[in-house]
Amino acid sequence: MNAQGAQAGQGGHSGQDAAAAAARAGTRLDPWFTSYADRAHGMRASEVRSLFAVANRPEVVSLAGGMPNIDGLPLDFLAEMTAKLLRERGPRALQYGGGQGEEELREQIVEVMRYDHIHAHPDDVVVTTGSQQALDLVTEIFINPGDVVVAEAPSYVGALGVFRAYQADVVHVPMDDDGLVPAELDRTLTELKRAGRTVKFLYTVPNFHNPAGVTLTLKRRPQIVEICRRHHVLILEDNPYGLLGFDADPLPALKSFDADGVVYLGSFSKTFAPGYRVGWALAPHAVREKLVLASESAILSPTMMGQLSIATYLSTYDWYGQVKEYRSMYRERRDAMLGALAEFLPQASWTVPDGGFYTWVTLPAGLDAQAMLPRAVTNLVAYVSGTAFYADGQGRDHVRLSFCYPTPERIREGVRRLATVVHAESELVSMFGTATHHDRVGDSVEFPSPDQV
Amino acid sequence: MNAQGAQAGQGGHSGQDAAAAAARAGTRLDPWFTSYADRAHGMRASEVRSLFAVANRPEVVSLAGGMPNIDGLPLDFLAEMTAKLLRERGPRALQYGGGQGEEELREQIVEVMRYDHIHAHPDDVVVTTGSQQALDLVTEIFINPGDVVVAEAPSYVGALGVFRAYQADVVHVPMDDDGLVPAELDRTLTELKRAGRTVKFLYTVPNFHNPAGVTLTLKRRPQIVEICRRHHVLILEDNPYGLLGFDADPLPALKSFDADGVVYLGSFSKTFAPGYRVGWALAPHAVREKLVLASESAILSPTMMGQLSIATYLSTYDWYGQVKEYRSMYRERRDAMLGALAEFLPQASWTVPDGGFYTWVTLPAGLDAQAMLPRAVTNLVAYVSGTAFYADGQGRDHVRLSFCYPTPERIREGVRRLATVVHAESELVSMFGTATHHDRVGDSVEFPSPDQV
Repeated sequence: MNAQGAQAGQGGHSGQDAAAAAARAGTRLDPWFTSYADRAHGMRASEVRSLFAVANRPEVVSLAGGMPNIDGLPLDFLAEMTAKLLRERGPRALQYGGGQGEEELREQIVEVMRYDHIHAHPDDVVVTTGSQQALDLVTEIFINPGDVVVAEAPSYVGALGVFRAYQADVVHVPMDDDGLVPAELDRTLTELKRAGRTVKFLYTVPNFHNPAGVTLTLKRRPQIVEICRRHHVLILEDNPYGLLGFDADPLPALKSFDADGVVYLGSFSKTFAPGYRVGWALAPHAVREKLVLASESAILSPTMMGQLSIATYLSTYDWYGQVKEYRSMYRERRDAMLGALAEFLPQASWTVPDGGFYTWVTLPAGLDAQAMLPRAVTNLVAYVSGTAFYADGQGRDHVRLSFCYPTPERIREGVRRLATVVHAESELVSMFGTATHHDRVGDSVEFPSPDQV
Repeated sequence: MNAQGAQAGQGGHSGQDAAAAAARAGTRLDPWFTSYADRAHGMRASEVRSLFAVANRPEVVSLAGGMPNIDGLPLDFLAEMTAKLLRERGPRALQYGGGQGEEELREQIVEVMRYDHIHAHPDDVVVTTGSQQALDLVTEIFINPGDVVVAEAPSYVGALGVFRAYQADVVHVPMDDDGLVPAELDRTLTELKRAGRTVKFLYTVPNFHNPAGVTLTLKRRPQIVEICRRHHVLILEDNPYGLLGFDADPLPALKSFDADGVVYLGSFSKTFAPGYRVGWALAPHAVREKLVLASESAILSPTMMGQLSIATYLSTYDWYGQVKEYRSMYRERRDAMLGALAEFLPQASWTVPDGGFYTWVTLPAGLDAQAMLPRAVTNLVAYVSGTAFYADGQGRDHVRLSFCYPTPERIREGVRRLATVVHAESELVSMFGTATHHDRVGDSVEFPSPDQV
């Protein structure tokens, strides 16, 4: 958000007042400032860009980003495979495709979802530009401004950004080490109904949660489904990490308990690679129809080259063997991170993820993750402040640490640097009773500012 | 739109009444019908899918689709190039990228736009999932429900779909053989202002218009820019076909006359190939910032594999030579179509495109393009009814014929078949005074139904 927008936001003006004021004050900076839609005033610089910027500086150990480590991919195989695809099926691979995505790929997606105990039909799959686009499309077709989305506390920052763009109100429901708490969900939905609010869906990441690192237990899964069905609330089940469990096969997806009540989102970004931007939604039939229409309007059709490349990879390479390699690679990194936390930061606490990319760290009492971030980056380690994962300003006592990208040695070094910062901050807290007197990161500083993470 | 939606729409209910009625009548068909956002009720089956369905039936000569003919692409070169890219830069090409797109590609896009007399900076370019996504993002950040978009009469059907999805009101402005008529634009904007309407932008395709086939003259370009500037209306200049002029280099883009007043959209889908889904927007700086935020929310980042493939193609192949080959190939097809129209359909009239994919045909008096479509497809030729290109029901006296995809022989055969249908319909008109008594295409018929084209 530019300076006018921030100013207007602080003043608490309505969108139109703010626009008018800014138009008087600064139209030379943005001649179109008064023309934006209401929703655009809520768009804030996302953490995604900032995290990339930080992660790309080689001297910083980034425990912030969610980029998968794809160094293990068989590049020679992919080079040969892709050359053959272009020679033999080039005119098709380089052409437009249908809006729903290629049947050849949708059939294979159905096979991939069997690992989640889902028995689906390719007709109900919509291929999207990463599962992020699926998230955007589902929100587009369901959310009117002011509708409620119920989501875990904390929640995936990219989902919160989508919900904000469509002017949804996010209401968080507590989690514990077993995932989303059913009784809390039931209570929240009941209260929202009593308050006359329109709840459109529950957004949930049941497996290896981003950022919390926990997994919804098998016992709770049918309970969550039953509660949502009883309240007539759709479930949006986001499962990018499901196949990356370190010790066991995936638990049955929520979708497997209630095909009509759940839209399931999947992705090849973590099990293969993000570079083609291919994900999918599996939706009840009528919802699927709307998703296709919305996707055609947004992008006409998903990339044929990406779809056929992934379909060919799935059908000609031991892709599940590659997933197993990813698992053991990420397990080693998880172990490095938890070991370093125990060694260097015993005064903090953290979740123990059984898969995925993240652990969720509770800082020692009195520390402020957001205020501490500039000092951390000065000490050449980056994380994401817990505040990024809430729609309501919670999370200052938490940081998300990701162990997906750096080597185990770098992870250990990053946690060591973080511990140095935490110890220094803790000393200040014990001397002055608070650490929040530190300068906040301003716009002039070239790492994530408070409204960016 | 499903059956309940159509029913509710006919009854003229408000969205909520319709939803409630449908919920009572048919929740077994769609348990989530009452949950959709208002905007979703306006999403209708788009012509894009139907056009693909028709075009894919080999016995039908499709003069309907807008698929480029990419048979001339150097597949062996692309196979080698892509294999090398994966071997040498695979970990980057298969990874996430930044939300704005790769600088390497944005620099080359700036070079491509020099042909349009545009002198831009790579910082002001946003890479998107085809220029369709750019169209979607611009509409997202500017349009509140009920805002007005001014557009040519007729207009690109995919743009009208986007404007409808964001609940814009489209007001059409007449064109003639010289493109959009400045005096009509001025008059329309003045009247809209007087009526208290909020006009957010003018959407225009100045070069080789889809569907009208005409080009905005050089003389009119600064006039259009001046009128919009005077009314403080942004211009959204969509230029997918600009490099595909048959006889001359491109005219200066509207963007070249007023960098701050125009968002320019470009695409590689017609000058290279659509299969990677890579297009772009060139926007004033503050607008560009919003576009990046909106795009990150929608898809995180555009495909790295697609971006690096196109960047490598542009830097290592004679891409402009390929464009010249496309030009002469499309010129031959345009000539085949105009020749066949003169031979078989002299009682109709049509525009003479100097580039691009389309000609816009005015049917003999009394014919109804939409009502005639099922008979045409029965006669194994497909077109798009003119009604698809208006937001207000105009266009029954027009058809769009595309000459981009079939061979010249097939184009000639298609026009011959179309002429047979037109002659038969004309006889009915001369006997009964109208042709609209024919059965409309119903949902059970497997080709474009009236609300699909």
